[in-house]
Amino acid sequence: MSEMGLAVVGAAGRMGQTLIRTVGGMQGVRVIGAVERAGSPHLGRDAGELAGVGHLDVPITDDPLRVFAQADGVLDFSTPAATVEFAGYAAQARIVHVIGTTGCSAEDDAKIAAAARHATIVKSGNMSLGVNLLSVLVEQAAKALGPDDFDIEILEMHHRHKVDAPSGTALLLGEAAAAGREVGLAENSVRVRDGYTGPRSEGAIGFATLRGGSVVGEHSVILAGTGERVVLSHIAEDRSIFARGAVKAALWARDRKPGLYSMRDVLGLS
Amino acid sequence: MSEMGLAVVGAAGRMGQTLIRTVGGMQGVRVIGAVERAGSPHLGRDAGELAGVGHLDVPITDDPLRVFAQADGVLDFSTPAATVEFAGYAAQARIVHVIGTTGCSAEDDAKIAAAARHATIVKSGNMSLGVNLLSVLVEQAAKALGPDDFDIEILEMHHRHKVDAPSGTALLLGEAAAAGREVGLAENSVRVRDGYTGPRSEGAIGFATLRGGSVVGEHSVILAGTGERVVLSHIAEDRSIFARGAVKAALWARDRKPGLYSMRDVLGLS
Amino acid sequence: MSEMGLAVVGAAGRMGQTLIRTVGGMQGVRVIGAVERAGSPHLGRDAGELAGVGHLDVPITDDPLRVFAQADGVLDFSTPAATVEFAGYAAQARIVHVIGTTGCSAEDDAKIAAAARHATIVKSGNMSLGVNLLSVLVEQAAKALGPDDFDIEILEMHHRHKVDAPSGTALLLGEAAAAGREVGLAENSVRVRDGYTGPRSEGAIGFATLRGGSVVGEHSVILAGTGERVVLSHIAEDRSIFARGAVKAALWARDRKPGLYSMRDVLGLS
Amino acid sequence: MSEMGLAVVGAAGRMGQTLIRTVGGMQGVRVIGAVERAGSPHLGRDAGELAGVGHLDVPITDDPLRVFAQADGVLDFSTPAATVEFAGYAAQARIVHVIGTTGCSAEDDAKIAAAARHATIVKSGNMSLGVNLLSVLVEQAAKALGPDDFDIEILEMHHRHKVDAPSGTALLLGEAAAAGREVGLAENSVRVRDGYTGPRSEGAIGFATLRGGSVVGEHSVILAGTGERVVLSHIAEDRSIFARGAVKAALWARDRKPGLYSMRDVLGLS
Repeated sequence: MSEMGLAVVGAAGRMGQTLIRTVGGMQGVRVIGAVERAGSPHLGRDAGELAGVGHLDVPITDDPLRVFAQADGVLDFSTPAATVEFAGYAAQARIVHVIGTTGCSAEDDAKIAAAARHATIVKSGNMSLGVNLLSVLVEQAAKALGPDDFDIEILEMHHRHKVDAPSGTALLLGEAAAAGREVGLAENSVRVRDGYTGPRSEGAIGFATLRGGSVVGEHSVILAGTGERVVLSHIAEDRSIFARGAVKAALWARDRKPGLYSMRDVLGLS
Repeated sequence: MSEMGLAVVGAAGRMGQTLIRTVGGMQGVRVIGAVERAGSPHLGRDAGELAGVGHLDVPITDDPLRVFAQADGVLDFSTPAATVEFAGYAAQARIVHVIGTTGCSAEDDAKIAAAARHATIVKSGNMSLGVNLLSVLVEQAAKALGPDDFDIEILEMHHRHKVDAPSGTALLLGEAAAAGREVGLAENSVRVRDGYTGPRSEGAIGFATLRGGSVVGEHSVILAGTGERVVLSHIAEDRSIFARGAVKAALWARDRKPGLYSMRDVLGLS
Repeated sequence: MSEMGLAVVGAAGRMGQTLIRTVGGMQGVRVIGAVERAGSPHLGRDAGELAGVGHLDVPITDDPLRVFAQADGVLDFSTPAATVEFAGYAAQARIVHVIGTTGCSAEDDAKIAAAARHATIVKSGNMSLGVNLLSVLVEQAAKALGPDDFDIEILEMHHRHKVDAPSGTALLLGEAAAAGREVGLAENSVRVRDGYTGPRSEGAIGFATLRGGSVVGEHSVILAGTGERVVLSHIAEDRSIFARGAVKAALWARDRKPGLYSMRDVLGLS
Repeated sequence: MSEMGLAVVGAAGRMGQTLIRTVGGMQGVRVIGAVERAGSPHLGRDAGELAGVGHLDVPITDDPLRVFAQADGVLDFSTPAATVEFAGYAAQARIVHVIGTTGCSAEDDAKIAAAARHATIVKSGNMSLGVNLLSVLVEQAAKALGPDDFDIEILEMHHRHKVDAPSGTALLLGEAAAAGREVGLAENSVRVRDGYTGPRSEGAIGFATLRGGSVVGEHSVILAGTGERVVLSHIAEDRSIFARGAVKAALWARDRKPGLYSMRDVLGLS
């Protein structure tokens, strides 16, 4: 099969550059187009040179329609408004649209779903293969090992610059655990412990947060029973895993018919 | 619902005593019978006193038929020959038979399957809930994260007295990983590494073994990709988890119709 | 060298029984006396039978003076008032006195120090060899890896029944880290994180607490720098480690001249 | 205090470029010179541009004498022959010389020691602060927790491209453990375990190796006793830690009198 030609939108941004570098290092894909907003100072520059991987002969343009017409797929970590627009163009071009954009409203999501009648869209709030797999496994484990004997704790560590706690991924894993237990997360969360806490409540989902150094992101979900524990962990070594996951989603979607898919579909676990 | 009355076979042995202690500490079950082989020096002694949990008014007997007639279920970590015989009695009594016995031949298994037309049998080589769950999760993870980018490694640690390596559970987890990848374990295993090894082969399943102290048993399956890792672990703190798993299997089986079930069924994951 | 004869005080209590069982399983020591308070219902019973290790021919008595006169050392996890009294008797008998009692006042400590002119006393708030070693290593690590680049985090996990957080051992390790940094722990502690926290402060010592299952006690001190981490951990599998540490302290002290020693002395690290 | 001016030798190589990038990101230091061998195609290029950190106005030269005369210190991860020569120039200039070069012969080391009468030399086979600290802690732990009850195991994981096992750092940690126990490593090592191994020997130092993904390097030394474990670990997230350690060594050495120092001196632990 020929290489899959991918367009990157937001090509001059931090994630756009990571996408261009990542595509360059993977098999079966190449960058054939790079889009930035009108007025960007980077228009006309070569996308590869900007990303530090050498000349690719792909000038950055503000004309997505023309780029999409030549592409097999689009990698998009932009903004909700831009993503909705790009989804429409992807539908016109009947190509793959991989969306890692966060913060879409219900209205945005409805427009994206409409575009998915003609585009093959994969959308996820976290494009890491490992985190998406982990959330599926956590849901199953939480269901199989019930609250009468197994306590669920979620531990995360991130670098010293992170300003909020727990991490979005820790909460996502907490949601997966709560879904497995068929309970709500909010009413079962224990977010902090200090001083006299009393014994642990049955069914509680506890969180603990570590911060330090340059840790990219580590998460563990612990199911602790009487005499045994199951621990399900994800370690991110490098922020490029989100770009890699997006490329894998694009390759997976290449031969699918139009529709709205998730990373669980890509993993074959839905 | 009334308490489930359980009979323990091999009641004077190490596992039998653990079963009797474990049943005593769990909800919804009680020991109503204790069986040993004819000629055992413990016949007539109280099963609770022998196990160190005080008088239970359950004398150890060599008459399984009479005990099974009064029981709702039987917990059996004995020998293949004895287990086949007990399965027949359980079928006559139409009760639950939880089998943790290892080493059964194909012929033994056929007889057990025949008994399962009238008995509700749960049989597994490892009765720990956590290990059984882990093997299901490992199979899924190995399938979802393919060998093109994810390397599988299996690490185990046991106490200083263990005389073989890798552990049976490590091999069981390796089989689960190989099944997920739809390959054979034997031809993909890397059992040791020392000196010049060359780079890792795609699709290899590596094993590493630690021995020391009094560690009951710890296993980790690592799926290591470019920039991220998923780690699925089980920690056994106490050998009683096998007895606890057997009791949970008995409680699960209480309302099932006759048949041959596995711990995956008990976990709701098959 | 002949076996060291040890007396156990509080012999009918939970820790006393653990001490008696532990001495029975170790080389070079044996139980030669067992003391309880006057009026205890266990006076006159055999200490070994009470502890479940069979007859030792050591009746429990309320006469410490007579027992200490025959002993080489005393193992004492009792109360401050009793410990002060026992230290005086140990001084009279010029024997070893291992003190794991917690909660002693400054006045109690002064009396114990006075007794140490004639008794060889080892006193520690935590008799585990591993935890005492870890606190020494943490102090050194915190000193060597300064706050300009290394952030210190302390993680602990205990069973679901523990009612306070962080654990006493976590705080002890925090004190060791603060001592290595030559700062106070209280003014540098971050005990919880939730919601918007802002970036981590230089020099902060963070705590995180996990609760669940039957975990005996696990502690990790993480020194997280730019691009690397050092993690120093202790895992307790069994509460008997405190008894084992006390016996090791007694054996170490046997040939020492009178004085007041700590577990750091026993470890050869002071 | 003014910034420390550092020269980088081998400035066009992979490690040289990492050094230049690392110095640029740290406080109190700047690159004032860059040396390559005569005939290098990179002579005359700007060292900063080559390393991808922008123009530094530091042209790469093949004249170390002139560069050293202007420098406060030299960072050197080159070859034994070059290092011996550079040590002589550093002695003439009476500056700091940080040596991460490996493979020096006894004769090379003698020449370096001679240069250290006038140069302030810090030399180590591994410039990571964390690994050097860990080896000190391991030696102490191995001494404090003797072989009668504590078994030592060393676990390492590296990426899939690593071609030998165990890693050099794992062996270095094994040497530290053996030194703490006052035994030889070779005659106590257990390098692999497979099949029937028999029980663990007292005093053995076991190794286990994991390979997979893109893991930069992780090492754990486990001291496993009856009922407790101490685990001392190092996690490298990024290869730049060796460059960072070299810069820290240079800053530490700036005010020292001439002599031959190790990273243990830099850490204040010798």
